[in-house]
Amino acid sequence: MSRISILGLGAMGAALAMTLIRKGHSVTVWNRTASRSEPLASAGATVAASPAEAIANSDLTILCVVDYPAARAILAEAEPVLANRDLVNLTNGTPGEAKDLAAFLQARGAAYLDGGIMAIPPMIGDDGALILYSGSAALFEGHKAALDALAASHYLGDDPGLAPLYDLALLSGMYGLFSGFMHASALVTSGGGKAVDFLPLLLPWLQAMSGTLPDLADKVDSGRHDQNVVSNLAMQKIALDNIVRASREEGVAPDFMEPMLRLAARRVADGHGSDDISGVIETIRRQK
Amino acid sequence: MSRISILGLGAMGAALAMTLIRKGHSVTVWNRTASRSEPLASAGATVAASPAEAIANSDLTILCVVDYPAARAILAEAEPVLANRDLVNLTNGTPGEAKDLAAFLQARGAAYLDGGIMAIPPMIGDDGALILYSGSAALFEGHKAALDALAASHYLGDDPGLAPLYDLALLSGMYGLFSGFMHASALVTSGGGKAVDFLPLLLPWLQAMSGTLPDLADKVDSGRHDQNVVSNLAMQKIALDNIVRASREEGVAPDFMEPMLRLAARRVADGHGSDDISGVIETIRRQK
Ligand SMILES: NC(=O)c1ccc[n+]([C@@H]2O[C@H](COP(=O)([O-])OP(=O)(O)OC[C@H]3O[C@@H](n4cnc5c(N)ncnc54)[C@H](OP(=O)(O)O)[C@@H]3O)[C@@H](O)[C@H]2O)c1
Ligand SMILES: NC(=O)c1ccc[n+]([C@@H]2O[C@H](COP(=O)([O-])OP(=O)(O)OC[C@H]3O[C@@H](n4cnc5c(N)ncnc54)[C@H](OP(=O)(O)O)[C@@H]3O)[C@@H](O)[C@H]2O)c1
Repeated sequence: MSRISILGLGAMGAALAMTLIRKGHSVTVWNRTASRSEPLASAGATVAASPAEAIANSDLTILCVVDYPAARAILAEAEPVLANRDLVNLTNGTPGEAKDLAAFLQARGAAYLDGGIMAIPPMIGDDGALILYSGSAALFEGHKAALDALAASHYLGDDPGLAPLYDLALLSGMYGLFSGFMHASALVTSGGGKAVDFLPLLLPWLQAMSGTLPDLADKVDSGRHDQNVVSNLAMQKIALDNIVRASREEGVAPDFMEPMLRLAARRVADGHGSDDISGVIETIRRQK
Repeated sequence: MSRISILGLGAMGAALAMTLIRKGHSVTVWNRTASRSEPLASAGATVAASPAEAIANSDLTILCVVDYPAARAILAEAEPVLANRDLVNLTNGTPGEAKDLAAFLQARGAAYLDGGIMAIPPMIGDDGALILYSGSAALFEGHKAALDALAASHYLGDDPGLAPLYDLALLSGMYGLFSGFMHASALVTSGGGKAVDFLPLLLPWLQAMSGTLPDLADKVDSGRHDQNVVSNLAMQKIALDNIVRASREEGVAPDFMEPMLRLAARRVADGHGSDDISGVIETIRRQK
């Protein structure tokens, strides 16, 4: 079993540390606000007085704090002990931030693996949790047993920016789902209904409409949005307009629906009214 | 078997008519552009020369055109034959439009049922298709066998605005899903990946995150967003900011993610950073 340090004991860091303890690893913890270490100490963790002490006394250090500037500040403080260390950063950030941090650590002789946690804290250590990794393949292979204790591990490649890119893409999917859920719930509850009573309609509907994503994805990849169209964009633009007008009738602010209406209207105005809705991606994706 | 007229033979109207023919009903069709009647005539439908002729020669008339102004124009033309007729309107619109049309028809002695089709045309007549209805309960009960031939039928109440409200709420959920899918696909494809290759990550992730909606729905209904929070809004606001910054790094326009970032930031600024993301709904829902 590995000696693992966890730096950062927020909701997620605490779940990571507790899971590793439960699965028999030797865990050292550190958190800026010391009181948050107490439940972990009670569960058997060693509490380090500083990030440097935690890093120096472990085979693997996992960072999980609020953002990259915080991660960077922690590592700057521990600079003297970084050489030959294995560091995994599970803090959310951009591909650019991951690449910068990887370069900072490489210059100090440390191996770096970036990770994106695709789970909420109660899922850590259970089936269904996934962590995306990219960066040092040697570090990933060397510590795979410990990493697998946290979640299913999915290695994307040695570019440290890949895990954050795919993490943020998946989060985008989730925030789209939440945007739609909130707008739907605002309409239903403004009409006197309950959001929980609406879920038995919403969940199977979202399941059914997820079934159209493979077809839309094919169109996104080919850039051909005019094949086998069963729901043309001109018609859908009117449905989006109906959503926004109905929202105003019901006193619901249409913020979450406005981008799709605006971008669909732009595509229709540009002559793509008989295309599929997949074509809306051309208004946001990088121009080649 | 009923004598049923279908007015409007776009992608959806044609699917409705074809399904009723296939299931043994006697179907009359009319479409503004006459050529679209031909495939239905070949399949056994009677082609009417006008909406009035179609309505006069059937027990039930189903409208499915692009919007309410089009539906209204068709019915105005058929005004002399409306008395004692049963009309179902499956055209997408707002609750206000449905109530206006119901009043127009009631004043002319016709029974009115409003419907929202929760399916794409290829699903009509198969398992998984759903149509929401509201308005005349007598009409719904009297024609239930014919309506059930199209999809599972779900009656919401006698207020004709209910079906459009729930229809638009479900469509909002779908457009949220599509917004997230498009942003995610734009990030992945701008990074050189393929949208189809990303789906094996995205679909189970959306499935897992749909599992958090019952908890969020409870918070939406109670208005208490500060209980059992495992993903606090201050942290999520940073993740949203990371999505928008990474999008700019990748050359992807952040339109679909900006509303959630803006509204989450507003909640955090208002002191709700330790609440759950469900609280964002308070920025869009009707104030009591
Ligand atoms: N919770 C989730 O659902 C979830 C899911 C996937 C990924 N994540 C990611 O996990 C990471 C942590 O999230 P969380 O939910 O644990 O957040 P959290 O509960 O808000 O905890 C934030 C952590 O960051 C520390 N921190 C903040 N600023 C710091 C600084 N300047 N120096 C040192 N430490 C600092 C905090 O220390 P103090 O205790 O001293 O404030 C605390 O340990 C984030 O990147 C998040 O995106 C979270
Ligand atoms: N397709 C879907 O995925 C789907 C799913 C659920 C609900 N719906 C709803 O079903 C309805 C029809 O959609 P669709 O997909 O069939 O659209 P569509 O393929 O674009 O067909 C539009 C229909 O409306 C007719 N129309 C337009 N303006 C008219 C006017 N002024 N007077 C008379 N007829 C007029 C068109 O006649 P012409 O042939 O003469 O142009 C055509 O029959 C919409 O309300 C839509 O929201 C569609």
